[in-house]
Amino acid sequence: MTTPTPVPPTPIDDVIAVVRAHAMPLPTETAPLAGALGRVLRETVLAPEDQPPFARSAVDGIAVRMDDSATEFRLVDQLRAGDWRPRALAPGEAVRIATGAALPAEGLQVVMIEDTVVENGHARILRRDTARHVRERGEDFRRGHPLLTAPTRLSAGALALLASLGVTAPAVSRSPRIVHVATGNELVPPDHTPAAGQIRDSNSTLVRAFLGARGLAVVQHRAPENFAAAETLLRDPALGASEADLLLVSGGASVGEHDFTRRLLAELGYEILVSKAASRPGKPLIVARRGAALAFGLPGNPLAHYVCLHLFVQAALDGFAGLPAETPFRAGTLATEIDNDGAGRETLWPAHASCAAGAVVLEPLPWISSGDLSALGRANALIRVPAGAGRLARGAIVPFVSTVPPT
Amino acid sequence: MTTPTPVPPTPIDDVIAVVRAHAMPLPTETAPLAGALGRVLRETVLAPEDQPPFARSAVDGIAVRMDDSATEFRLVDQLRAGDWRPRALAPGEAVRIATGAALPAEGLQVVMIEDTVVENGHARILRRDTARHVRERGEDFRRGHPLLTAPTRLSAGALALLASLGVTAPAVSRSPRIVHVATGNELVPPDHTPAAGQIRDSNSTLVRAFLGARGLAVVQHRAPENFAAAETLLRDPALGASEADLLLVSGGASVGEHDFTRRLLAELGYEILVSKAASRPGKPLIVARRGAALAFGLPGNPLAHYVCLHLFVQAALDGFAGLPAETPFRAGTLATEIDNDGAGRETLWPAHASCAAGAVVLEPLPWISSGDLSALGRANALIRVPAGAGRLARGAIVPFVSTVPPT
Repeated sequence: MTTPTPVPPTPIDDVIAVVRAHAMPLPTETAPLAGALGRVLRETVLAPEDQPPFARSAVDGIAVRMDDSATEFRLVDQLRAGDWRPRALAPGEAVRIATGAALPAEGLQVVMIEDTVVENGHARILRRDTARHVRERGEDFRRGHPLLTAPTRLSAGALALLASLGVTAPAVSRSPRIVHVATGNELVPPDHTPAAGQIRDSNSTLVRAFLGARGLAVVQHRAPENFAAAETLLRDPALGASEADLLLVSGGASVGEHDFTRRLLAELGYEILVSKAASRPGKPLIVARRGAALAFGLPGNPLAHYVCLHLFVQAALDGFAGLPAETPFRAGTLATEIDNDGAGRETLWPAHASCAAGAVVLEPLPWISSGDLSALGRANALIRVPAGAGRLARGAIVPFVSTVPPT
Repeated sequence: MTTPTPVPPTPIDDVIAVVRAHAMPLPTETAPLAGALGRVLRETVLAPEDQPPFARSAVDGIAVRMDDSATEFRLVDQLRAGDWRPRALAPGEAVRIATGAALPAEGLQVVMIEDTVVENGHARILRRDTARHVRERGEDFRRGHPLLTAPTRLSAGALALLASLGVTAPAVSRSPRIVHVATGNELVPPDHTPAAGQIRDSNSTLVRAFLGARGLAVVQHRAPENFAAAETLLRDPALGASEADLLLVSGGASVGEHDFTRRLLAELGYEILVSKAASRPGKPLIVARRGAALAFGLPGNPLAHYVCLHLFVQAALDGFAGLPAETPFRAGTLATEIDNDGAGRETLWPAHASCAAGAVVLEPLPWISSGDLSALGRANALIRVPAGAGRLARGAIVPFVSTVPPT
């Protein structure tokens, strides 16, 4: 047994850049609107027609000729939304018209129903000004206008827009095939009572929920921290790891877990891109590639998992989805001071971000040790504390990354 | 045909208060962790045991007695995470120990492996300071400590925390049973080409995606704007509207849609609580109740739908989930001026909210008319513009509501 040769850890921004450099956009496919929420649109959608496609009444009222200054009108038709009955109006003629209904002719104005008295097929106008109350054809946008610019993540509102345009099978990025294997001899499933020395596997739950919150499915398996068994599992076509776009291996906390995962990935034909990250927690991170596929060796400690998923695996998901490479870090104001211990690595500190009086306020959560998950109940952000920083004062502007699923 | 009697519209905050007053928490049920993401926890979770449950090594190294100042040690055991082999150490004895492994005895310290030379069953210590590198039992929290305070929405991190505690069937609010019916003779399904005067139904897509983004399913149906047919549909046990906790009726834009829905709900035994909202768009809103069930008549115009879903239906969902009643409005800074037309009602203006330099910045989106959905592609917020406001200056602090699904 010899001490391992130290490998200099890769700075956080460099790890993200390496991941983005290798996570290429997956092919596009079409998705039905019912299955497109949260997917990334890959082809810009242009307006297929003028909107509105015809002049419509903006109010419930009486349509009259603008050049007809009479106050008493004979109602010659009653138009509801969905009706299409073009007709010219003679002087003294008017049409009862509902909001959204197509106007029967050009050169009309609509007088609001509140400003009229309607009786026995006639309308008397009580008040009339110059407002036309007409939504003109093409007023919102013209045919060919770009309405959704790719790439963009499809929200509920964007899907409603697509539905209104008749785009019912938008081109989106194929979702990555993801396989996750948790190793670690000390792990038992969450519904088992750990024997002395054992702990419950929370990482499998975290990985599944992290991906599920992003609309992604995952095939999961728990593997013994035994090289031959783990390799057999990962080569098993039933698991599908060899076809995965993304392979996640959660380390245990046993001796040599890091080398275990690194050797396993190398044996499976992966090229190691990063073998340590300059982040606390999360240092024993491994990033590897095989063709267009990516693999992550995630440190077993649950808080390190939380950090590595939101910083590094998120970057891979964004790359696969075809989103532009942008820093995930934003700036916020510290609600209370952070008493860091001046670690030699950058620290990602669990926090609760909220919006108060126009500012993004970050409340650092109590965090005793890297095995302490209690902060994860409320965390929705990770504050980036510089290497070697001692105390960060209340009110300081600090970078953070949101852990809320991107929308 | 007579003009309708004007009903004074209910102010926005009052509508929200009425909804919250009637949307009572639904019963609790247990959910498996795999199905609990985004659900609202209803029972506070206390730590069932000390964490860590036993003293563990915080590093990979050599465990020695603190009172043993020797530099050469004989290795009497090798402990990995998951091992449980208590033993007393005699002077000169040490144990090779991995990160996370249980310490074999009290009164030990762990010297990091980098500060030792290990050879032939012996360890030589090169550097040693007073750091113990031990995570003590109960260091993170003690048995009985509240770890997740109800009510709280369960994030991926919270689920990992529950998994680590062995809480695999948390008590959460039952999800509401929701039925949605879209009425309107002018509507055709999104994949149909509208005839002259017709438009595509985008509201059904919006309602489904709004609820889907919140983890909620909905039974949907399109109904003719015909009173007898709509009533028959809503009484049909196959649709399940009579068992629904929440009934949503999207109006068409035909003459009298508002009265149509109001009469329909009254006929079904609902008590009308609100019959107009002082919001633009969204004025023809109806809120009604029947026992513990709520119903909304949503104005057919898609942007009004968007506003009413995020302001009023969200309040009902929060109430059913058992979340405390809090204003949904936050404050942000206007990125560009808003040239409002001084409407007599408060306006909810589609916007894109982002975080820049510690501030929440709101970019108002171009918005031509209330039938214009083009803003919905990018909108993630609605700015609240006061009634009668003319121009709001760039840099003004304004209230807004986020339309991102709550987490």
